[in-house]
Amino acid sequence: MSKTATASLPSDHKDEIEHVALDEDYVLTPGFVEKVVDASDAGDGTKLRSLLEDLHPADVADLMGFLTAEHRAVVVLWLPADLLADTLPELDDGIREDVLERVPHLTLAEALQELDSDDAAAVVEDLEDDQRERVLAAMPDVDRAAIESSLGYAEDSAGRLMQREVMAAPQFWNVGDTIDHVRKQGEDLPELFFDIYVVDPLNRPVGSVPVSGLLRAPRTIALSDIMEPVNEITVDQDQEEVAYIFEKYHLISAPVTDSAGRLVGQITVDDIVNIIQEENREDILRLAGVSDEDRGSSVPEIVRSRVPWLAINLVTAVLGASVIGWFEGTIQQVIALAVLMPIVSAIGGNAGTQALTVTVRALATRELNSSNASRTFWRELVVGVANGFVLAPLIGVAAGLWSQDWRIGGVIGAAMVLNLMVAATVGVLTPLTLSRLKFDPAVSSAVFVTATTDFFGFLIFLGLATIVLI
Amino acid sequence: MSKTATASLPSDHKDEIEHVALDEDYVLTPGFVEKVVDASDAGDGTKLRSLLEDLHPADVADLMGFLTAEHRAVVVLWLPADLLADTLPELDDGIREDVLERVPHLTLAEALQELDSDDAAAVVEDLEDDQRERVLAAMPDVDRAAIESSLGYAEDSAGRLMQREVMAAPQFWNVGDTIDHVRKQGEDLPELFFDIYVVDPLNRPVGSVPVSGLLRAPRTIALSDIMEPVNEITVDQDQEEVAYIFEKYHLISAPVTDSAGRLVGQITVDDIVNIIQEENREDILRLAGVSDEDRGSSVPEIVRSRVPWLAINLVTAVLGASVIGWFEGTIQQVIALAVLMPIVSAIGGNAGTQALTVTVRALATRELNSSNASRTFWRELVVGVANGFVLAPLIGVAAGLWSQDWRIGGVIGAAMVLNLMVAATVGVLTPLTLSRLKFDPAVSSAVFVTATTDFFGFLIFLGLATIVLI
Repeated sequence: MSKTATASLPSDHKDEIEHVALDEDYVLTPGFVEKVVDASDAGDGTKLRSLLEDLHPADVADLMGFLTAEHRAVVVLWLPADLLADTLPELDDGIREDVLERVPHLTLAEALQELDSDDAAAVVEDLEDDQRERVLAAMPDVDRAAIESSLGYAEDSAGRLMQREVMAAPQFWNVGDTIDHVRKQGEDLPELFFDIYVVDPLNRPVGSVPVSGLLRAPRTIALSDIMEPVNEITVDQDQEEVAYIFEKYHLISAPVTDSAGRLVGQITVDDIVNIIQEENREDILRLAGVSDEDRGSSVPEIVRSRVPWLAINLVTAVLGASVIGWFEGTIQQVIALAVLMPIVSAIGGNAGTQALTVTVRALATRELNSSNASRTFWRELVVGVANGFVLAPLIGVAAGLWSQDWRIGGVIGAAMVLNLMVAATVGVLTPLTLSRLKFDPAVSSAVFVTATTDFFGFLIFLGLATIVLI
Repeated sequence: MSKTATASLPSDHKDEIEHVALDEDYVLTPGFVEKVVDASDAGDGTKLRSLLEDLHPADVADLMGFLTAEHRAVVVLWLPADLLADTLPELDDGIREDVLERVPHLTLAEALQELDSDDAAAVVEDLEDDQRERVLAAMPDVDRAAIESSLGYAEDSAGRLMQREVMAAPQFWNVGDTIDHVRKQGEDLPELFFDIYVVDPLNRPVGSVPVSGLLRAPRTIALSDIMEPVNEITVDQDQEEVAYIFEKYHLISAPVTDSAGRLVGQITVDDIVNIIQEENREDILRLAGVSDEDRGSSVPEIVRSRVPWLAINLVTAVLGASVIGWFEGTIQQVIALAVLMPIVSAIGGNAGTQALTVTVRALATRELNSSNASRTFWRELVVGVANGFVLAPLIGVAAGLWSQDWRIGGVIGAAMVLNLMVAATVGVLTPLTLSRLKFDPAVSSAVFVTATTDFFGFLIFLGLATIVLI
């Protein structure tokens, strides 16, 4: 959980600020962004500070996204230190890197101490090596150790994601013991917690009690009588897997254990929401051949993110075009074929992308696995044939009328049905195969699918035409 | 929150079942699914029941997704009533409709009473009209009224999403009063809650206290001294907007108010996780031209979900092809142009899809609005030109070598740069325009973008070729 500035604001004042800064959808108004831009152009620090100081950190992060790098630099300069600290974990990676370069290392060291260990580690991770060393050196030993231990876990692992602050209770305690402990030890506990983890003498979680369950139970009831089984997460589990478990079992928080099964931290659902969004973002962008960029990316970064896929597409497009080259003689005799051939490949590409997207999504949500893979494949093939029988008459009649040659209508109709079968096959099998080989099924699937439907679209159409017409 | 069967299971027994049914990723093993299939083929109800009774409802729902309709029918017959109740809200829509048809209305009426009002309403919503009437008639008045009132709110609204059970406390109470109230009124409160909403005498929320905060505070402290400002949701807000607020401010639960500002229910983060997944699923599928299907959809349903977009594509492909028709004379003279022209349109389509996907995603996460729309547009245009200058020399040299005509290399290189500018323009402006007109920017954007890049790809390439070569 992030500790946020909001908590300490009197409600009325916050309402007033939100009224100015946010529209009814909780998005910053263009008018407010403009005010910030004007104040930073004028170098009016007092004005800037008064505009910013009562914003929620999430809104400050949003604001950064709407500003140019120059205006961002001025804003960072005038942002109150505690608000800056809370804002850092909310920023997009690209923007965070830019902001971090502008913050003096002592300010940063101080800001990081205010954050929970998971948030602090997420920020430190983005620092350049030398800045990281200076910032860590300026922090108290205990905070530095927490961050270094967090960074010791693999990126995207549960260990990196968890916060070390956790509310644990020995299994022999009763409800009263637990409540008294919370009242006394409040300072050392997480700022917010939703479950109390009941642990055995070796500090291994044996159950959990939701805080509302603790509140409801009489003080003399033993924790072991009201605890529920826990879904344990281990430090080395991948964050995508953790998100799946949270989503499937509707968890609010879960204990994280080390290799010996000992409780070492907890993961809360608000971090999971971010991960779900991040994974979805990756899937949707990868399907479109965009590798890694966000709103903070510069033009060269974006070009690097997109050109590789376009270059691969160039190669596959040339391969597809080479098929056309084989039939130059046919086209020379029946020039109408040159006009019609892109229609066959375009519809094939679209149908293949449909099948591909549905399959990638089903794999991502684990609705598709070896139990139903072959059933899914056959269903897609039947769908492909059915789509073909809907579309083939339309294009067949249109092409026949236009070319005044019904043989051409027949050829394009038949080619359409066959290419939609190719599309279904390659649309399902490509992501399934990638997934079985432990690759991300979204990466470069689309290029392979459309390359295949282009290739076979041209081949089937021009091949059939050569047989029938020439 | 769903009340789940897990809570009442002794931990050891559950571990054992999970060991058999689930792999290390918490996905049902093909071996377990096979056992269920065999038992239902054999009509062995006792075996089926023993396989199923200790599963988590989410796993039963998963199992249903892996089974054919015939096997599902047998499983529904043998599923214990309380487990069936908990499973219903977890099912995909298509599968839920199928399952509901097989459950007698009295069993269903009883099952629904076990659920929280939001989950019960979500199930009743999926019933056929006559079955719905019979099921509601068989329920106690109070449960029926709760469901009917929930269904009175618009689909996808906060009112439909909220549960009516909520923990509220008057603002003059202190911590001790509140804890005593929870202990006494435990039965009428939500099964799980995370925040206590502090209300004024008109039942309007004025603040909230996280349950862990209540636990931490001394009994004599007034709620008004520890409460935090609330992010209120109103009954008529769209669920997508609600999800955005939860995600942005890291909320675990939020109070829902009616038009007079009175507290009428709450929304919890676990429901939000489902909505985020649902909205992401819609975005990714709509971009691929898939309108509405899930793993429970039949072949005719899938065809209906996909054919419309393919048919529209057929029309736009014909429009693109008609451009080629204008240049039949040019192609007749230089047949190499027929081979090369699909390359220009393919790369344009891919680059347009990249720009489109990034823009749709940025709109969905509200990273893009009128504050930065024009900056985004210019950035994409520069990216398009830059991509063009990377790719044009490659294809220009390749085409020049192959055709042994450097003019053809020059024409295809220039056409590539120009079409990538078209791609960037249409890729950004299409979703932005749809979004401004209050349409979903993902729907039918892709077809328009690729149609445009096809059209201009052919036009620019063949037009330039006609000028330069003929």
